[in-house]
Amino acid sequence: MNTNNNSDNKFWSDNVKKLSPYVPGEQPKINNLVKLNTNENPFAPSPKVLQTIKDYFLQNNENTNAEFLRLYPNPDSSELVETLANYHNVENSQIFVGNGSDEVLAFAFYALLNHNNKKVLFPDISYSFYPVYCQFFNINFQQIPLTTNFEIDVANDYLNYKNKDEVGGIIFPNPNAPTGLLVNINLIEKLCTTYANIPIIIDEAYIDFAEDNISNSALSLLKLKQYKNLLIIRTFSKSRALAGMRIGYAIGDSNLITALNYAKNSFNSYPLDRISQIAAIASVNDENYFQNKRNEVINIRKNLVLNLQKLNFTIIPSAANFIFAKHNNDNKFSGEFLQNELRKYNIIVRRFNSPERIKNYLRITIGDAQQCDLLIEKLAEIVG
Amino acid sequence: MNTNNNSDNKFWSDNVKKLSPYVPGEQPKINNLVKLNTNENPFAPSPKVLQTIKDYFLQNNENTNAEFLRLYPNPDSSELVETLANYHNVENSQIFVGNGSDEVLAFAFYALLNHNNKKVLFPDISYSFYPVYCQFFNINFQQIPLTTNFEIDVANDYLNYKNKDEVGGIIFPNPNAPTGLLVNINLIEKLCTTYANIPIIIDEAYIDFAEDNISNSALSLLKLKQYKNLLIIRTFSKSRALAGMRIGYAIGDSNLITALNYAKNSFNSYPLDRISQIAAIASVNDENYFQNKRNEVINIRKNLVLNLQKLNFTIIPSAANFIFAKHNNDNKFSGEFLQNELRKYNIIVRRFNSPERIKNYLRITIGDAQQCDLLIEKLAEIVG
Repeated sequence: MNTNNNSDNKFWSDNVKKLSPYVPGEQPKINNLVKLNTNENPFAPSPKVLQTIKDYFLQNNENTNAEFLRLYPNPDSSELVETLANYHNVENSQIFVGNGSDEVLAFAFYALLNHNNKKVLFPDISYSFYPVYCQFFNINFQQIPLTTNFEIDVANDYLNYKNKDEVGGIIFPNPNAPTGLLVNINLIEKLCTTYANIPIIIDEAYIDFAEDNISNSALSLLKLKQYKNLLIIRTFSKSRALAGMRIGYAIGDSNLITALNYAKNSFNSYPLDRISQIAAIASVNDENYFQNKRNEVINIRKNLVLNLQKLNFTIIPSAANFIFAKHNNDNKFSGEFLQNELRKYNIIVRRFNSPERIKNYLRITIGDAQQCDLLIEKLAEIVG
Repeated sequence: MNTNNNSDNKFWSDNVKKLSPYVPGEQPKINNLVKLNTNENPFAPSPKVLQTIKDYFLQNNENTNAEFLRLYPNPDSSELVETLANYHNVENSQIFVGNGSDEVLAFAFYALLNHNNKKVLFPDISYSFYPVYCQFFNINFQQIPLTTNFEIDVANDYLNYKNKDEVGGIIFPNPNAPTGLLVNINLIEKLCTTYANIPIIIDEAYIDFAEDNISNSALSLLKLKQYKNLLIIRTFSKSRALAGMRIGYAIGDSNLITALNYAKNSFNSYPLDRISQIAAIASVNDENYFQNKRNEVINIRKNLVLNLQKLNFTIIPSAANFIFAKHNNDNKFSGEFLQNELRKYNIIVRRFNSPERIKNYLRITIGDAQQCDLLIEKLAEIVG
């Protein structure tokens, strides 16, 4: 966070002096680390991704060999756009690709959520980058508290929002982060119809870890009802295990996608390099691997939840590749205590000090079976 | 450019409706294309870059093998920052790395050039992305005409600018694009001292193609005099032949670099993927290859200029990997005519319709010797 005395920074634009940048989960350089803090996939990307990249560097194919790194990539990632459009059965014009879903979100805030002094609504406990984007682009926002059960209360807090004229956009992750809870798709549909004149953005970074990732996705609404105001954001960093390659995308009506492209082409024309583009295409084309690993993560999650319950933890029902959990005796076993104890065993989990009511929760990424067994073993020692 | 009737776009933020996005040079998919339109390097990147990437995918080194694409990259590209700091003999805190110099420029406009209603000054004929960034971030600007010789007249137009209080920043490429002309380093120093309270940004995308790329670079000023307001922007896309991998950086006082990091971390934490980071490091570590190819491009340029002069072309003296040239009989051989004729031979060069006085100039990227010979052969036929 911003701890400088920025009043001395005479060369800085005024806006920058007010920023409190996002703080990503740490990426420590420790061998044998059990890294359960940034929601990466415990499994490698599809072997076909790796083979595609190897081929690029080993083959003498004139269109794909390494010599071509000297040339700019396709600025619009056109082949990847087409691959995703075919995969999701939408038009090419309904897909926008960016440098990770963070960049896609940034363009969405800029291009679709800045309506004079109107407010963007999102939950108080949610992806902590949302208020940062609002600061960055000077967008008004209102953080709406989750219920005491950590639910996004769409019916009461959004559909029955008193001053709808003041709302310039609504965004939340589904499933939400860091809670992992899903919002019912019927409620998302009601948002699209109740707020027909403002953008509704559903951040589906984790949707593939819902057991039914098709009917729970807002994509089903987009395809059936073609809501003009609905934008869905996805990432290759979680279910496709490509966080290291920075690929995200949005799906929506072509009018919304055009706005994102205007923004992108006024900021950085070529956000995806050549290797990321071919890696992403290869990943989408390996559906079997994707489904297998998705199911494996879901099964490990079920097992982890059962084991944590045996250790007297409360776990919010998760449709993501992480769980949000606290010990029931959180006076004795506070979040901070547990996080620090786990670190002694090189097990790293994430925790948020703010707001106060989540400080005792650990956000634990679903690792592989061995990592989760080790986590349970060490937690049993700690709380046993 | 923006040709939609954007008044219908009710979901768009107001700002987006006003944008006229940058239009990158085309990347046609034609075999045997002589592609002299986007200032890419005619030579491949260093073989050590390619070897480093191959090793990443072929070796079973636990820190670098392909399995690790599942993990987020280092958000600050720390090893690359350190490599560049060592290479340029500055502190790590003086280097900022981004997704191509376009992204670095975007953050520089946001973080350093937006001072209330003050104006950013840059040349009218220059990198055409500058006014786009200003539109994107709502920054006032004034485009100052080049002289009739296409020079940036620093002494008259900038140092003697009447209302210095209205100036919030100055930026230009050195050498300038699309002219290729260098500004004398002493004049850049005078800008730093005359405008000691505002940022001076020198965009050195092409500086390595100056015959003396050390003493002509503002880096010499930064190191000798440590001007607090001087920021230098560089790219791996030109002299390092890595346009396909999207790597740019800035060098300046750590206070300016901190501002860029605040902006980056409020927009997209991880702009460089894992492969780009290792590719860039390998490139910097192969100094011999870099110097050899730099000199080869300079020599081909000299030869191309001589041959074009024989064909009755005027060529602006270039310190870049492109030349800006027009035929002396431009009534008969207009820029548009020449561009279209060359395209019939699959030779693509770039041209700008605006401002009017450059419409007959072709911006020709320095290709390899064979490509430049072919260009001369075909131009001889066309104008012969």
